[in-house]
Amino acid sequence: MKKKVIEPAWRETPPVEKSYRSIFKWGAPDGYKHPNQKLLNEIRSVFHLEDSYFLSQKSSGDEIVSFKKSIKLKKEQILKLQKIAGKENASTDEYSRLKFSSGKTIEEAINLRNGKADIVSDIVIHPKSEEIISEIIRYCNSQKIPVYVYGGGSSVNFGLRPTKGGVTLVMNTYMNKIIELNEVNYTITVQAGIMGPDLEDALNNAPERLNAKRKYTCGHFPQSFEYSSAGGWVVTLGSGQASSYYGDAYNLVISQKYITPKGNFTTLNYPAAATGPKINDIMKGSEGTFGVLVELTLKIFKFMPENRRRFGFIFPTFQDAINAGREISQGEFGMPAVFRISDEEETHIGLKLYGIDGTILDKAMQLRGYKPMQRCLFLGSSEGESHFTKNVKKQVRSICKKHKGMYITGLPTKMWEPGRYKDPYLREDLQDYGILIDTLETSVRWDNLHSVHQEVRKVVKNRPETICMTHSSHFYPQGTNLYFIYIMKDNGVDDYIKFQDIILESINKSGGSLSHHHGVGKMISPWVEKHLGTEQMNVLRSIKKHFDPNNIMNPGGQLGLDFDKNLNNKKWRDMK
Amino acid sequence: MKKKVIEPAWRETPPVEKSYRSIFKWGAPDGYKHPNQKLLNEIRSVFHLEDSYFLSQKSSGDEIVSFKKSIKLKKEQILKLQKIAGKENASTDEYSRLKFSSGKTIEEAINLRNGKADIVSDIVIHPKSEEIISEIIRYCNSQKIPVYVYGGGSSVNFGLRPTKGGVTLVMNTYMNKIIELNEVNYTITVQAGIMGPDLEDALNNAPERLNAKRKYTCGHFPQSFEYSSAGGWVVTLGSGQASSYYGDAYNLVISQKYITPKGNFTTLNYPAAATGPKINDIMKGSEGTFGVLVELTLKIFKFMPENRRRFGFIFPTFQDAINAGREISQGEFGMPAVFRISDEEETHIGLKLYGIDGTILDKAMQLRGYKPMQRCLFLGSSEGESHFTKNVKKQVRSICKKHKGMYITGLPTKMWEPGRYKDPYLREDLQDYGILIDTLETSVRWDNLHSVHQEVRKVVKNRPETICMTHSSHFYPQGTNLYFIYIMKDNGVDDYIKFQDIILESINKSGGSLSHHHGVGKMISPWVEKHLGTEQMNVLRSIKKHFDPNNIMNPGGQLGLDFDKNLNNKKWRDMK
Repeated sequence: MKKKVIEPAWRETPPVEKSYRSIFKWGAPDGYKHPNQKLLNEIRSVFHLEDSYFLSQKSSGDEIVSFKKSIKLKKEQILKLQKIAGKENASTDEYSRLKFSSGKTIEEAINLRNGKADIVSDIVIHPKSEEIISEIIRYCNSQKIPVYVYGGGSSVNFGLRPTKGGVTLVMNTYMNKIIELNEVNYTITVQAGIMGPDLEDALNNAPERLNAKRKYTCGHFPQSFEYSSAGGWVVTLGSGQASSYYGDAYNLVISQKYITPKGNFTTLNYPAAATGPKINDIMKGSEGTFGVLVELTLKIFKFMPENRRRFGFIFPTFQDAINAGREISQGEFGMPAVFRISDEEETHIGLKLYGIDGTILDKAMQLRGYKPMQRCLFLGSSEGESHFTKNVKKQVRSICKKHKGMYITGLPTKMWEPGRYKDPYLREDLQDYGILIDTLETSVRWDNLHSVHQEVRKVVKNRPETICMTHSSHFYPQGTNLYFIYIMKDNGVDDYIKFQDIILESINKSGGSLSHHHGVGKMISPWVEKHLGTEQMNVLRSIKKHFDPNNIMNPGGQLGLDFDKNLNNKKWRDMK
Repeated sequence: MKKKVIEPAWRETPPVEKSYRSIFKWGAPDGYKHPNQKLLNEIRSVFHLEDSYFLSQKSSGDEIVSFKKSIKLKKEQILKLQKIAGKENASTDEYSRLKFSSGKTIEEAINLRNGKADIVSDIVIHPKSEEIISEIIRYCNSQKIPVYVYGGGSSVNFGLRPTKGGVTLVMNTYMNKIIELNEVNYTITVQAGIMGPDLEDALNNAPERLNAKRKYTCGHFPQSFEYSSAGGWVVTLGSGQASSYYGDAYNLVISQKYITPKGNFTTLNYPAAATGPKINDIMKGSEGTFGVLVELTLKIFKFMPENRRRFGFIFPTFQDAINAGREISQGEFGMPAVFRISDEEETHIGLKLYGIDGTILDKAMQLRGYKPMQRCLFLGSSEGESHFTKNVKKQVRSICKKHKGMYITGLPTKMWEPGRYKDPYLREDLQDYGILIDTLETSVRWDNLHSVHQEVRKVVKNRPETICMTHSSHFYPQGTNLYFIYIMKDNGVDDYIKFQDIILESINKSGGSLSHHHGVGKMISPWVEKHLGTEQMNVLRSIKKHFDPNNIMNPGGQLGLDFDKNLNNKKWRDMK
């Protein structure tokens, strides 16, 4: 008989208003996703937890925000900024300053739970127009006041951290309009602060909402979809869960409008051109350091969910699954949209999470030799025209079979879909009990995938009592990404940072890229010069210097552009 | 009874050695493609030519190269450069200096036919290694000696013109090796000077030549394929005739190695990354102004000609054909590889050239209402996996039918294929009789395609006795290109330049891009700042200044980077 364990008292009440928790909590105030019993059992087992462990919660961060951090800007500067933006759109209250200075790193969550809030901007502005942003940038440039941009606030690398105080511009309050749906060109022009669901809803319901001839999709569905802005996708080089088919944010942007200290411009709007280096591409990934992205024209696609074909396979080993993934990606029949391969440990836990573990399907797999902690899960779906999606699925099945994959229907994809944006909610539940869940990610070529996977995994697993799940979720003919999810005990913020640094160091040393789709921010920036080499770093610095000679745009460590050579770059957290 | 006309005495003998003709003549010395009788009749009719017109040839350029253009470099500079490169690899003879200073513009052809050769470099170097190039760049930077790069020599916009003398580096003599075929990553790493046919032959015969498991293709087939280098494709942003499927040169390059006055570097080799603005992309299209591209890693594809499916259609109007092209490009079933739509006049002449005019097929078309000078030809083929190519063709047929297109089999594509690289040979034949054939091209969105087409065409046709054929040959979901071919009488170089300027002006004014795949060079550069706007032009200038503070890399008008604000930019030809 199974021992009955006490279900932890998971929190379902929204955070107290104006509390620290209301800032660090992921997503909707009343949103949650509790760890299911099987994940919990896994954690109990790996962490050697007593039955009583989940009886007492750690600090919940429900205290009302209160910190002693004076405003560094001069009174006349605040007054001038309030005059430009309208006083009602420019806040200097403590709560606003902290809220819009915070992203979604685990480090911030740990600190905020403990009421630690030392890095905040001086004033938070919700601009209502390009003209206002332009005037703010002009004024801040003349006064050398730092400017930070807050899109959706989902940064996991301190991309929006106002290291040097100053102004934070919040883009999603007013700068969130649809400007033009162009059904001839298959593009939509939007203000940069529009959030994922707003954009997608307008496109999915284009006949009603935009008086269009048909329904469309934006094709970009990052896990942060519900809490990220279109502008944020582009300046951080995001990727969506269906990007293997639709393309990364980089590929989706036809034209952009920027406001910079050096002037304002809109990049050319052509499907392709041979008129020198492409300014439109130079601006992508600039993470707020060159200027403010205020408007962008994105590709759109036909919305055809009726053509979606789901599939799932189990492979004897990760190597087999990846070999199949590679052959599919190089197969020239079109790419699947969702395309995910889990490694041994993620498969082990994934089958529990998707409710497949212990079922007849599981038994069939085991009987046929697909062993736990060796077998690997591959799930996905195809999108596009109906014959196209049918053929993609057919070819995928045939290639998987060749690589010893057993077809296990579209069920795993169906089980995965409803939770596709929900996993980040696990953070709060686990952290309420002193357990951290976090991620780092990298891109790899096929020929270094396994060595990067093994080296990074070894470093993570070298920490006692740590779960490490890895998947590849974005595929290209030339390689893929590796997404590492690790669950561990919270031993305080210093221990956490040290561990994160070790993982980042191993990603860089093993030959993965520093990021596949999370961007660089300030967290990863100490590695950038080593990663790119000084020659290429200096190219970025020269462009930065051109746009922003006074270093007012996202200064203090972003992308590593303004690290002092004499400073130990790892100490960027101390930059003031 | 048809009047019998005298066949012109087309030239089939190779140019005299060391003659001007040996420099300006397109392609192989003994290569030719004579205008066929039907094209000639068209020319006779449009130009109102007497029967006797083709009896007497104009200047043929067979004179031995001889010009009085002294070497501007100091003797010790020449000696030093010869020492670095090896004396046998560094020529200062008149013929070499002129040959490697010349591209394939019609302006150059007119001038060289008349023995005019005023712009030449001082010394031509065939470097044997990266180290030698590196040393040359270091030395030239210290001495402020201009450096120009000659890839395959097919530039049609003075991209390699050594406006300011100095050194020309010829990349295709020795820097033309295959470094690594990577069958895991589906990439090939080559030196930048490798020529199209060498690369493609090695890939098509990879099992024998590179000890590979299978055959591959590079997927890049510009009309200049036989006389252009892989490095040239990338720095000028070329497109191939199958780019709608394989991607433009921009999309094919994973990593590049550059030697610049500011140092040497290789860009990151990942299928994707989110580590700030992409240096790999910033370098593309730099046209020799930032540094010398010495090595590049390109995507490769499975070579599967057996899966190719050809198709051809005739449409009642250009509008109908373009509507079908747009629906195909936005159809999400994959793109055709070759994908060409000819406008009314090109169709009219194309049907003659492909031998379809006057056949039963032509009669069937006319009977069904597809009228000459209204009907438009659409031809193409699909490539990739066999079910994929079959479905592409099936969907194309269904969409074309919907837009009143009549299927006319794969014959037009089959007729077009053998001549796909041969058309430039027409230049010499026609010019021998005082007739010029030249091209300009632009990219357009679907929503401005017809207005750009009509406006530019109007300007061309406004010149009396001018043939103007236009096609779209590179398709994207968001738009396509327009490629204008015009045939006219040679009224001297000044008249020619004036006409070309008028066309470029109308392209820019009508809203097309300045170039879709020919690049900018020095010819189009006077329009670049107007096209991009000063803010964006200054971004390019800041990067230029970073890499090349002494302006030694391709100086004198390239990309418009070093135009003096006080100079009339149209006078770049006088820059010294």
